[in-house]
Amino acid sequence: MLYENDHKYFMAKVLDLAISKKGFVSPNPYVACLLVSNGQVIGTGLHNGAGSSHAELDALLKLPKCFDRSKIILYVNLEPCCHFDKRTPPCAQLLIREGITNVVIGCLDPNIKVSGNGVKLLRNNNIDVTTGVLEDECKKINKIFFKNMLKGLPYFEGKIACSLDGKIALENGSSKWITSSKSRKRCHEDRVLYDAILVGKNTFFTDRPKLNSRDKDKVIKENKKIIIGNYLDIIDSIGDYNPNNIIIISQSSVQDSASIMNHNGIRILFFKDKIEEVFNQLLSIGICSVYVEGGGKTFSYFLKKKIFDEISIYKSPKILGKGKSFSDQFRVNNISESLHLKNIEYTILGEDILLKGYL
Amino acid sequence: MLYENDHKYFMAKVLDLAISKKGFVSPNPYVACLLVSNGQVIGTGLHNGAGSSHAELDALLKLPKCFDRSKIILYVNLEPCCHFDKRTPPCAQLLIREGITNVVIGCLDPNIKVSGNGVKLLRNNNIDVTTGVLEDECKKINKIFFKNMLKGLPYFEGKIACSLDGKIALENGSSKWITSSKSRKRCHEDRVLYDAILVGKNTFFTDRPKLNSRDKDKVIKENKKIIIGNYLDIIDSIGDYNPNNIIIISQSSVQDSASIMNHNGIRILFFKDKIEEVFNQLLSIGICSVYVEGGGKTFSYFLKKKIFDEISIYKSPKILGKGKSFSDQFRVNNISESLHLKNIEYTILGEDILLKGYL
Repeated sequence: MLYENDHKYFMAKVLDLAISKKGFVSPNPYVACLLVSNGQVIGTGLHNGAGSSHAELDALLKLPKCFDRSKIILYVNLEPCCHFDKRTPPCAQLLIREGITNVVIGCLDPNIKVSGNGVKLLRNNNIDVTTGVLEDECKKINKIFFKNMLKGLPYFEGKIACSLDGKIALENGSSKWITSSKSRKRCHEDRVLYDAILVGKNTFFTDRPKLNSRDKDKVIKENKKIIIGNYLDIIDSIGDYNPNNIIIISQSSVQDSASIMNHNGIRILFFKDKIEEVFNQLLSIGICSVYVEGGGKTFSYFLKKKIFDEISIYKSPKILGKGKSFSDQFRVNNISESLHLKNIEYTILGEDILLKGYL
Repeated sequence: MLYENDHKYFMAKVLDLAISKKGFVSPNPYVACLLVSNGQVIGTGLHNGAGSSHAELDALLKLPKCFDRSKIILYVNLEPCCHFDKRTPPCAQLLIREGITNVVIGCLDPNIKVSGNGVKLLRNNNIDVTTGVLEDECKKINKIFFKNMLKGLPYFEGKIACSLDGKIALENGSSKWITSSKSRKRCHEDRVLYDAILVGKNTFFTDRPKLNSRDKDKVIKENKKIIIGNYLDIIDSIGDYNPNNIIIISQSSVQDSASIMNHNGIRILFFKDKIEEVFNQLLSIGICSVYVEGGGKTFSYFLKKKIFDEISIYKSPKILGKGKSFSDQFRVNNISESLHLKNIEYTILGEDILLKGYL
């Protein structure tokens, strides 16, 4: 019999493996599994993204047929699925059919078609099931998937690079560079995690940003690019951008709210009053997560409407004085109404610091 | 024979002892010494503030007469003095007379009357002298004394409590509380280190701050209070403040620049054009170090004139939006002209963070 700490030890290994696919499994969750026998890892499985095997199948396919399945503990970070409307057959059935007798699960699946039912099915078939091992960590690596499933909305992270006094640019617009190259490198590592990068039209027209994820000059991922602004103006200035990667969120009084138009590959999502009207439509076109990079007007709006799930603020040890703040158009009447970030994580990046918090 | 690491080990103990008097030796430096024989600490000495014994004398007075002085290594963080214009006789002579043969010194005295001469005198009397052990640390604990001696000016630290977006108050002036009680506690621990706390007249009239160092409600030190503003207005509103603790920096076209007036205990320092004119006069009335607590206008002025030696920024994980920034009246035209803090130290204080840097 293994102790609880052994379970945590192996689940931590499962998480390391699952996150190795970071940025490349959307719209699916990160899932890995470990096959452990006699305290030894004898097999691993990994989900490689939509259309490929689930982690459990991946592991069991690789395991020699002669190996006695009843001697194995299968560790998996997310509850095995039990529904038939995916491209792959349900994993709970697979484990039963394979003769697995012992399963350790990180967290339940938030998908209402699964949540708890996978565990129930396993237990009804005399499989010993332990749940809730490193549960918080398991939920955290799949925060995007949980938000999608529970709210029907994309996960939003806001990113700001600013000075000690909260400035993102001088009054004359100058902003190169407030933070260090180490901060910018880290930002590109975070961009990878997201399906799309969003900016307002001012940033788009002024900076013509690449909005992809790079390591030095090598493109690691060509994120979709969401631009908020009048679609005719933006289409006019599309230039070298690949239209298939461009999504425009545009106001229109004539189009139906949340209707989608395709113009030579460019997707245009229309809203009548507020951009939030199109957010669930983003999911329908495969955008499960959005990295919001500004500028100040866009950021203030997202702050005001409490849209962010998470905010990353890169701070350099500089004082810029009079200039543009990232929150200039956000306003409260009382300190207690201010946006208060929770579960703050601090990361030192050279002489800069990254403050990450959740709303 | 001891190794270099032993020297560092004992010097670190000297520093711990020296700093135990923090906030209470001004205008003198922090000095302690250790008497070590055969790798054992057999005596300690501490300077307790102006008028009391220097650390070397304190240690040797306590050492039994029978103890063989030639077997001792004397560790001291600051070079022993060799001039006669202090209230106490010079320490270098004392060590020679006492028959000390081995002295380890942290850093040389910045006082031009001493610097290097204390060491020379010891060596000329056949004493084995090692210098520069934990030199940077030794200079750092006496940063105030070094600034006073080298520049003839007080040491200035700026302190700001602000939100993630650099705000010190909402537009309506509300600022209670942006940072947490842990941050405020730490701020009071830092106030102790300073002779005086400085605020602008707006902060003085609006907040009527106590400007002393407290642990919970217990007053640990009644710092001098420096207020910048018209002296007649401030004298009129002196209320419950003890006049002997009040120093006013006031502009006047009729008074001589840097002249000092005493009004019922209140000292008034006059300047013609810029407050910097009175800074060396602060030293003459015993103010060797100043903790600048704002508000925004005062802080911006000190930033603009690069007066600060050190800046502490307490940041809470809140976003306040539109409001008052600590640097609103400071302005640069180019990112490269921004104030760039060096040697940043980060301290986590509950959910707040303290960023300390040097200019």
